[in-house]
Amino acid sequence: MRRTRFDDWPCPIARATDLIGDWWTPLVLRDLFFGLRRFDEIQRELGIPRSVLTQRLDRLVEEGMVTKVAYEEHPPRFEYRLTDKGRDFWGVLAAMWRWASDHQWGDESPSIVLKDRDTGRVVRPLVVDEATGEPLDVRTVRIGRAPAG
Amino acid sequence: MRRTRFDDWPCPIARATDLIGDWWTPLVLRDLFFGLRRFDEIQRELGIPRSVLTQRLDRLVEEGMVTKVAYEEHPPRFEYRLTDKGRDFWGVLAAMWRWASDHQWGDESPSIVLKDRDTGRVVRPLVVDEATGEPLDVRTVRIGRAPAG
Repeated sequence: MRRTRFDDWPCPIARATDLIGDWWTPLVLRDLFFGLRRFDEIQRELGIPRSVLTQRLDRLVEEGMVTKVAYEEHPPRFEYRLTDKGRDFWGVLAAMWRWASDHQWGDESPSIVLKDRDTGRVVRPLVVDEATGEPLDVRTVRIGRAPAG
Repeated sequence: MRRTRFDDWPCPIARATDLIGDWWTPLVLRDLFFGLRRFDEIQRELGIPRSVLTQRLDRLVEEGMVTKVAYEEHPPRFEYRLTDKGRDFWGVLAAMWRWASDHQWGDESPSIVLKDRDTGRVVRPLVVDEATGEPLDVRTVRIGRAPAG
């Protein structure tokens, strides 16, 4: 079934949904963020069908979030690296991590957490207003027309 | 095609993906966040097939993110309201908004922005480390086992 595309909608949430709606994609990105780079590594780690992983990586390359780099010439072998645009997506994954950790374990807690690499302190992502540092409250914002210029 | 489910995976990103992977869901939530409550309003605003909207709202009710409340008895009519768990999802949508605003318009900018409801100031969501208020850098975190207790 061909799904509805949202990639030319005027709403940023719609355009992000168009990407995330390819439902393995956040997991492929997660693996890239945490150091996997090779097709076979990601394929094994996720247990994802090879054809699906090929499609997802091709889409990420096409979106400019990932580059495909040859690391061996004979035979030709490639690895996948996040671009700046891809790395910026970490905020979305971090927000997903926080929400699901808080709400998708019922009475239990997840067995894994994010930790500071140096100190081991548990890190909890939070979405704030960049200008004030205050947690972002949907009740205080509205959608409006962008300023001219 | 039945898709792979991620809702019992140990990774929070996977569990959030299971929900977002139903690719209209973030848009249905967006509409609820911005004040739509009735099936027909959401259906018209999104142009979503009625059967798909029914499925998505049922899932959100089942997840405990939305409640279905009767607002008229004869004939029976219902509206949908976000629960606390649903409202917490705003962080994910806000992070998606920021990333797509920054990266999915090519050389242009989105025609819509988030604004402070009172002052009209443009609001930019940012994902930070809750403890320090610093932007969250994936290179400084790792995935680790949750502390006991």
